[in-house]
Amino acid sequence: MGNADYVFPSPNAECARRVAIPPPQPFVESLKYNLKETFFPDDPLRQFKNQPTSRRFVLGIKYFLPIFDWAPSYTFEFLRSDFIAGITIASLAIPQGISYAKLANLPPILGLYSSFIPPLVYAMMGSSRDLAVGTVAVASLLTASMLGNEVNANENPKLYLHLAFTATFFAGVFQASLGLLRLGFLVDFLSHATIIGFMAGAATVVILQQLKGILGLDHFTHSTDLVSVLRSVFSQTHQSKRKPRFFWVSAMAPLTSVILGSILVYLTHAEKHGVQVIGHLKKGLNPPSFADLVFVSPYLSTAIKTGIITGVIALAEGIAVGRSFAMFKNYHIDGNKEMIAFGTMNIVGSCTSCYLTTGPFSRSAVNFNAGCKTAVSNIVMAVAVMVTLLFLTPLFHYTPLVVLSSIIISAMLGLIDYEAAIHLWTVDKFDFIVCISAYAGVVFCSVEIGLVVAVAISLLRVLLFVARPKTFILGNIPNSMIYRNVEQYTNTSSVPGVLILEIDAPIYFANASYLRERIARWVDEEEDKLKSSGETSLQYVILDMGAVGNIDTSGISMLEEVKKVMDRRELQLVLANPGAEVVKKLNKSKLIEKIGQEWMYLTVGEAVGACNFMLHTRKPDPLKEESEAYNKV
Amino acid sequence: MGNADYVFPSPNAECARRVAIPPPQPFVESLKYNLKETFFPDDPLRQFKNQPTSRRFVLGIKYFLPIFDWAPSYTFEFLRSDFIAGITIASLAIPQGISYAKLANLPPILGLYSSFIPPLVYAMMGSSRDLAVGTVAVASLLTASMLGNEVNANENPKLYLHLAFTATFFAGVFQASLGLLRLGFLVDFLSHATIIGFMAGAATVVILQQLKGILGLDHFTHSTDLVSVLRSVFSQTHQSKRKPRFFWVSAMAPLTSVILGSILVYLTHAEKHGVQVIGHLKKGLNPPSFADLVFVSPYLSTAIKTGIITGVIALAEGIAVGRSFAMFKNYHIDGNKEMIAFGTMNIVGSCTSCYLTTGPFSRSAVNFNAGCKTAVSNIVMAVAVMVTLLFLTPLFHYTPLVVLSSIIISAMLGLIDYEAAIHLWTVDKFDFIVCISAYAGVVFCSVEIGLVVAVAISLLRVLLFVARPKTFILGNIPNSMIYRNVEQYTNTSSVPGVLILEIDAPIYFANASYLRERIARWVDEEEDKLKSSGETSLQYVILDMGAVGNIDTSGISMLEEVKKVMDRRELQLVLANPGAEVVKKLNKSKLIEKIGQEWMYLTVGEAVGACNFMLHTRKPDPLKEESEAYNKV
Repeated sequence: MGNADYVFPSPNAECARRVAIPPPQPFVESLKYNLKETFFPDDPLRQFKNQPTSRRFVLGIKYFLPIFDWAPSYTFEFLRSDFIAGITIASLAIPQGISYAKLANLPPILGLYSSFIPPLVYAMMGSSRDLAVGTVAVASLLTASMLGNEVNANENPKLYLHLAFTATFFAGVFQASLGLLRLGFLVDFLSHATIIGFMAGAATVVILQQLKGILGLDHFTHSTDLVSVLRSVFSQTHQSKRKPRFFWVSAMAPLTSVILGSILVYLTHAEKHGVQVIGHLKKGLNPPSFADLVFVSPYLSTAIKTGIITGVIALAEGIAVGRSFAMFKNYHIDGNKEMIAFGTMNIVGSCTSCYLTTGPFSRSAVNFNAGCKTAVSNIVMAVAVMVTLLFLTPLFHYTPLVVLSSIIISAMLGLIDYEAAIHLWTVDKFDFIVCISAYAGVVFCSVEIGLVVAVAISLLRVLLFVARPKTFILGNIPNSMIYRNVEQYTNTSSVPGVLILEIDAPIYFANASYLRERIARWVDEEEDKLKSSGETSLQYVILDMGAVGNIDTSGISMLEEVKKVMDRRELQLVLANPGAEVVKKLNKSKLIEKIGQEWMYLTVGEAVGACNFMLHTRKPDPLKEESEAYNKV
Repeated sequence: MGNADYVFPSPNAECARRVAIPPPQPFVESLKYNLKETFFPDDPLRQFKNQPTSRRFVLGIKYFLPIFDWAPSYTFEFLRSDFIAGITIASLAIPQGISYAKLANLPPILGLYSSFIPPLVYAMMGSSRDLAVGTVAVASLLTASMLGNEVNANENPKLYLHLAFTATFFAGVFQASLGLLRLGFLVDFLSHATIIGFMAGAATVVILQQLKGILGLDHFTHSTDLVSVLRSVFSQTHQSKRKPRFFWVSAMAPLTSVILGSILVYLTHAEKHGVQVIGHLKKGLNPPSFADLVFVSPYLSTAIKTGIITGVIALAEGIAVGRSFAMFKNYHIDGNKEMIAFGTMNIVGSCTSCYLTTGPFSRSAVNFNAGCKTAVSNIVMAVAVMVTLLFLTPLFHYTPLVVLSSIIISAMLGLIDYEAAIHLWTVDKFDFIVCISAYAGVVFCSVEIGLVVAVAISLLRVLLFVARPKTFILGNIPNSMIYRNVEQYTNTSSVPGVLILEIDAPIYFANASYLRERIARWVDEEEDKLKSSGETSLQYVILDMGAVGNIDTSGISMLEEVKKVMDRRELQLVLANPGAEVVKKLNKSKLIEKIGQEWMYLTVGEAVGACNFMLHTRKPDPLKEESEAYNKV
């Protein structure tokens, strides 16, 4: 610390602390590196390196069909756990499937079909051990609202059904393409805050829709009571991860109420007194629906749009759920691979009379709590649904629709996560705004508008961060060479004659003008302050570039202008700790020669040391000549 | 440096080097600060502070009409310079005005009208002393292509004309609103690279269009020669800022060739042999056109769209030109105020038979080189144009259109700034891609598509910077406590048992998943490396947060997960130099307690010191208990 040479390094001395210009990198190589980081950040091909071809082939199969990876080590112990979990989620999947299909204005039987084939596909291809595959309320609602805008499901049920299959097909194609093209990171642009607001908004819309239906049932006087009872029972479902005490009650409640409701209607013949029931469900497994996909239709663009939007939403939920359980159990999930699995599942589904499926949170939480070990629980569920489809569909004839509405409402209440919204408010107000915008957009306008608004605001935040970067004045931390933000560290002291500014973002076209004006204002304010207090006048402006990750040509022009302005005001511009990218571009644009490499220091401390040395030994004017002479050498 | 206490600070000692939690700031105050930085970065109201009301009124008038600010100190010396500059730009404005009006498919006389009223308005309201107001080729081309898509100018010239006025009106309203709402920074999103590519593309389109016209004139055999002659003369124009040697030649060339061309046609009666001439121009000043604005029309949306796009383009050029000359002469320009001036100018223009005007680069450069001192040169130009309108329009009857085409082409050649494109390639490949995309979009698709593509790519770059932030391994710079990127500084050495990572961007929803995986990969790779070389196993992971300007709730969740993963792998997570925003949010989300405030250091050096101290004194396990005990206190 007391080392004078360290505190006052001579600007011309051969000193290791100069900022090194990084070795030039061929363009192709740096492009390759950047592409790799953008598209293959998880380096999925690492395991294939240095392996013989046959081994690579086996690894490749295991990569795309993970079931071959874990099946050989599957044990009877696992089967027992998976069997219990599978039966449990089947008991949830059957009533929920029927309910959500109604929500999407599709035949109820589609809900059962969609719980049969897609889980089997996912069990082969998926890498999550906890995800339970099935239809989801929000995507069902979206399908109903987006397709419903074009085709009335009651007037033209066949066309509506075919469009739903087509939308599912395109959702699958889109999901698989995202995964194959390694564009999975696009889903990250749906932030957590967006999803919370969006889900709550969709849930509110669904609840209002269902309540209208329930309250309209004048003949069934006990309906509201039933709702409140069911609600109190079901509202536990979504908390099952946190409160496994009532877990079995809540997991079995939907099926129980379906059975009880059906028996009640059957015994009282309530269906003849105005209580709507499901009615006839066709026996038998999924009929093929490949021929029903419509690729030539005036509604094709609607189907594609619906497919892409519902596909993204479903993906965002599925991936997030898969990741959070994987983290909990400490195994890894490859987002892009999951997307391929989801996509294939939906493409196959669209050809086998299923509509959009994903890994819903509520069902996966039940799966997890019921003790599932692998994706075999999905297979067990599929088999249970298959048995239902083959033999048990007549049992649902008398199931009252009001029970389905209650099941939907109870599941929806779980999606309104007001605690998460409060957390957002506490930690980050901007995230709260994003969340509320998504909520308000969905509730007051439409699901698509809510989504677009929330994503736009999230992006705006990122752009605003770059457009209006923070700039700080730095001060010296007592008894050190360390300089930090004077607002964060209140015990810092300023250095006479030196203004130290930290720029807290990359310098891009979007902020170049702002930074030029902001730096000028900092200098003005500092000079005003010094003038009014009669202190040493300003001689040096040090820019701490440590947080400037990158710079573009507009940024370089900006620095060039700042340098000119400083020269005109007889201030010396000093750069501290510029990063590799910045130094490279300063060098390429020759700006480094104008600033002078001797005015670029490794740390703010050393820059201040050099400035102090100059201030105390000679006047700045001859110095300039010297530095110019140095430049010529 | 040799201070043992500095190198190995005890983690529990009362030490000033701990990271301070910044004092809580009320939400309203921080919102106010952020809004101020976003919308008033230049603090335009600073001069109004602590002033009596009457003085504030005077300052307010001077603020919106800067002419009252500088007129009292206007001298005869200034007038002489401004007069010469004004006459010079008038000699350029008259032929260019007529040419560009033809380019926009509007009556040629509109070019003269647009050089009369708008310059007068700008002289009152503008804050630039060097800008010469007039119409521009690119906006003229845009008007022709966008309005031409809806209305054929030859078939329905009246409607077309009215739509052009309406578009100008909306351009003005949009420009003024941007300024009044302090949204001027939106124009910054048109980066320099975008503008270079866009201008060159538009110029290419215009040149091809004009050449077709010229080459089609079979009867006028010398036309191509004339073009090449004119070209060689005029191509100097745009370089006039750099090469004022031929300045007067190039500045006067357009008017000279108009005069020579007209005399030639008049003497040879070439107009009767197929050479197209301007024909009759109405004498007299601008007729009012307020009644021609069409607000109820099936084409209203086209007019609004055209207005907004041309308005933004014109604004981007005008502001950039004004700023660059202001910087050169060392005075300040307020972007938002300029926008209000441009907007008012176009609103007034649209009511007085003018179409879109701005401050074109070429004309302003001539103004500057001719020695203008204030906006009075614009007034002089307006008076000269007025005289022309009143008395000299018959002189242009015989001006051959081919001369106008040549004038356009020569001005356009100046817009193809291939040197700037080469500079972009050298300094920043990505900017070059943006530039080329804008160029290709304009040339091969349409002006609007080129613009949208270039802006989208520019934004994508900003988003990619945030979505894929750089992470570096840091190493120790010899004989110091400084840690820097090992790729930039090749003489660094690693610290046994400690992995130091720098994160180079804010942690947001868009990069949280990526960073989680990337950090995990760095740790994996480091452990693999250590295992294969048989060195000390990894014990500590230090994250240098110095460049992390901000964090949102997704980022906090990510850090929480990283902490859990580290705990599971028995690694200690240490944070170095987290900024005020980050510490605030870590604190609010209680994550700070999980990480432990004793594991947050002011610098990487101190964090490494603490890790080394632990490594060399005791095993990490009892340490953990101790730190937990510390947490409880």
